Amino acid sequence: MVSQAVTRQSVDFSKWYNEIVYKADLAAHSPVRGTIIIKPYGYEIWDGIKNALDKRFKATGHQNAYFPLFIPESYLRREAEHVEGFSPELAVVTHAGGKQLEEPLVVRPTSETIIGEAFSEWIQSYRDLPLLINQWANVVRWELRTRPFLRTSEFLWQEGHTAHVDEADAERETLQMLDIYADVAVHEAAIPVIQGRKSNIERFAGALRTYTIEAMMRDKRALQSGTSHNLGQNFARAFNIQYLDENNEQKLCWTTSWGLSTRMVGAVVMAHGDDTGLRLPPRLAPIQVVIVPIFRSEDERGPVMDAGSRLNAALSDAGIRVKLDTREGLRPGFKFNDWEMRGVPVRLEIGPKDVENEVAVLARRDLPGKEGKQTVSQANIAAVTLELLDDIQANLLSQAAAFRDANIFDVRSYDELKQVIDEGGWARGWWGGSDDDERRVKDETGATIRCFPFEQPGGSGSCLLTAGPASQVALFARAY
Amino acid sequence: MVSQAVTRQSVDFSKWYNEIVYKADLAAHSPVRGTIIIKPYGYEIWDGIKNALDKRFKATGHQNAYFPLFIPESYLRREAEHVEGFSPELAVVTHAGGKQLEEPLVVRPTSETIIGEAFSEWIQSYRDLPLLINQWANVVRWELRTRPFLRTSEFLWQEGHTAHVDEADAERETLQMLDIYADVAVHEAAIPVIQGRKSNIERFAGALRTYTIEAMMRDKRALQSGTSHNLGQNFARAFNIQYLDENNEQKLCWTTSWGLSTRMVGAVVMAHGDDTGLRLPPRLAPIQVVIVPIFRSEDERGPVMDAGSRLNAALSDAGIRVKLDTREGLRPGFKFNDWEMRGVPVRLEIGPKDVENEVAVLARRDLPGKEGKQTVSQANIAAVTLELLDDIQANLLSQAAAFRDANIFDVRSYDELKQVIDEGGWARGWWGGSDDDERRVKDETGATIRCFPFEQPGGSGSCLLTAGPASQVALFARAY
Repeated sequence: MVSQAVTRQSVDFSKWYNEIVYKADLAAHSPVRGTIIIKPYGYEIWDGIKNALDKRFKATGHQNAYFPLFIPESYLRREAEHVEGFSPELAVVTHAGGKQLEEPLVVRPTSETIIGEAFSEWIQSYRDLPLLINQWANVVRWELRTRPFLRTSEFLWQEGHTAHVDEADAERETLQMLDIYADVAVHEAAIPVIQGRKSNIERFAGALRTYTIEAMMRDKRALQSGTSHNLGQNFARAFNIQYLDENNEQKLCWTTSWGLSTRMVGAVVMAHGDDTGLRLPPRLAPIQVVIVPIFRSEDERGPVMDAGSRLNAALSDAGIRVKLDTREGLRPGFKFNDWEMRGVPVRLEIGPKDVENEVAVLARRDLPGKEGKQTVSQANIAAVTLELLDDIQANLLSQAAAFRDANIFDVRSYDELKQVIDEGGWARGWWGGSDDDERRVKDETGATIRCFPFEQPGGSGSCLLTAGPASQVALFARAY
Repeated sequence: MVSQAVTRQSVDFSKWYNEIVYKADLAAHSPVRGTIIIKPYGYEIWDGIKNALDKRFKATGHQNAYFPLFIPESYLRREAEHVEGFSPELAVVTHAGGKQLEEPLVVRPTSETIIGEAFSEWIQSYRDLPLLINQWANVVRWELRTRPFLRTSEFLWQEGHTAHVDEADAERETLQMLDIYADVAVHEAAIPVIQGRKSNIERFAGALRTYTIEAMMRDKRALQSGTSHNLGQNFARAFNIQYLDENNEQKLCWTTSWGLSTRMVGAVVMAHGDDTGLRLPPRLAPIQVVIVPIFRSEDERGPVMDAGSRLNAALSDAGIRVKLDTREGLRPGFKFNDWEMRGVPVRLEIGPKDVENEVAVLARRDLPGKEGKQTVSQANIAAVTLELLDDIQANLLSQAAAFRDANIFDVRSYDELKQVIDEGGWARGWWGGSDDDERRVKDETGATIRCFPFEQPGGSGSCLLTAGPASQVALFARAY
């Protein structure tokens, strides 16, 4: 196992990303075009995100269910915008069981249609509402340009689907779920996302309103990291999702959907990584502490390994995900680099002198060199390490927040916007333009409206492009 | 919501099963042929099985990963028996992204081939072994005759895939995973499965040896509930999975695979259910205790609901999955029937007199009528209920074991076997027949060799069919 150097971020961020994903063992190349194999180290990060979300979904009254992978092609056609949005990306099963199918089956790109059909059968009266369902599933979107985790032909995600009596309740749900996404991003992934509403042209195909959490990567590109849609009555109309209200009148439901995917693993990589490799937030790190034993002779080996095992047990008993690196034939320096590249938050070094003095050295991944090192009594190891992990989690978040804030600029004119975007930043300014105006900005600068942030300055201003009246500021950036 | 009576098991077991699956809300009909929608009540049972397995997989050193849904058609052809076994059941994607694919993609029926290809790249030396991977996934097998949970075109499962240095280690792994399946079946699902080895003709397509856990349903049919395969070097040869041993010699790996699916939800239904409906083992029951408040007037309502809420909180705090049935306009008797049908292990009744006396009535689902009822002080409610849940779990297991043992008969001749099978039992007898002999028994009686049980009488006997020498007994039964 030879740990190779990684391309520096400043040299080629995109190359850095592709290299680190495979070198850090998050994913492996797959023989199927546009897909990856998610390896255990990457899958565990996803599992951490999944558990954090699932707990919050259940605490807010949602239940998990599972719907078929295959959707009759005709279902997708029932909602006009929806089919237009997804048609170019569909994978289609035409043969099964040795025969041609009468109606081709689409491999789900998302499940609004098949779940809408089910909801129309399950919902009878207002007593059945709200209906709050979530699904953990794989979906397929045949993308032309793919990148590991960020955009792959198949990916894992959750998709929530809910039905409500009125617009207010649907809107409340849509925003609640966006809040949950932001909470997981901020407190688990240490990514300070910005919440806001998508513009018309960036809306989900078939939605009334789409809300998003947007994250800034280390190359200052934006990554849409989760979206929540108020679908209005569009799908209820297309699939006839009706209920009898308290006055025995037949009414159309209001529905929502919301999804967060394995793309979030890519967000963790690109929001925190540095030239040395990954920097994983402790709450999602598959390995929070790695113990590297240091010895030069067989005589030293025994006592050092014994101490390593004891510390391993002490940390594990405290609920810390710890690994004792027992690999033979590798120098400590090689192991240090290897685990740094893989982003383990804390390295514990233990050598003969440390054994003698009943101490160990803790080194932080987020603070390089001496600054991040401390010598700790073995007796206190668990308590000190737990606190250290909290510190690192908080530090990654504040570093990312500082980086984000330093790279968002208020702009008053199109020239200012162009300059900010050219220099790789995010531009925030009053916007009152049309869909076409927005498309023009995209064509000319490569930047899109990431969102109209919930945090608004208040009042009104004049549109940075048209100088016409504007009631809200928009956030522009180049995005993945 | 009208709770309808269920067809009695003795009248038509198959109809009972189909009715109860939908009435108890485990599943819903799906518009896609041969598939079901797994509803929250059914999904939570699966989640319980999943968590129980996942914990055990990790404790034995396995890690989760995720491989692509689509497999190039050519991969399946590399292992001759494997492609022959699965070809008739494949669903094939021929178009994607608006174009015809150059090579059709098969929707995975199982993942030995694509994982074999990956393993061949990941494994270099003996240091990489054993490689112990598990995947939680959906798979598709285009079955002609389908039944909810038992056999559907798409189902959820886990599939373990491992590679080893030699046959002994692969065999140890294969048996270890079967043991884990049996442990989960017995201790979580309360199903006393029989472990054994499959005959040649019931082996997995491409395996050297297949092991199985076999369960007896309430109609005495057998249900294969999980299988573990020693794949020998068949897939290693087909996919070139090699390693350098300690002497620097290139060797072929030995691989295994093992799977358990949502079929297990069907096993829980059919192993424990009775004429009234489901009887869920407490460890897997989504709702372990349902609280039904009983009152006749608005005056009684307040104190009873208050007590119900307090008891709900007390049980929930003790880690019990409890639900307070607050539905209005339904009589207690209706609610009793409804929750019995849905198999909730314990019903807690609370009325005005109980409130006065600070007691509650606990009724067991597994013991009908007065026998299963007890009045309990509210102060002790959590402790008593926890113990009661353990009792119910144990009782369901011992009832199922007694039922199984009462319906397995030792047979010495083919006539005896035919009689036992005709009467719906399982027949156990010495077997030394050929594959063709086994097929003859199947054609003539409908019974197959479920397994050669690990528990053998020892010594030898004469084959029940051919009267030739036999070194082991086989278990024959009609099966799902």
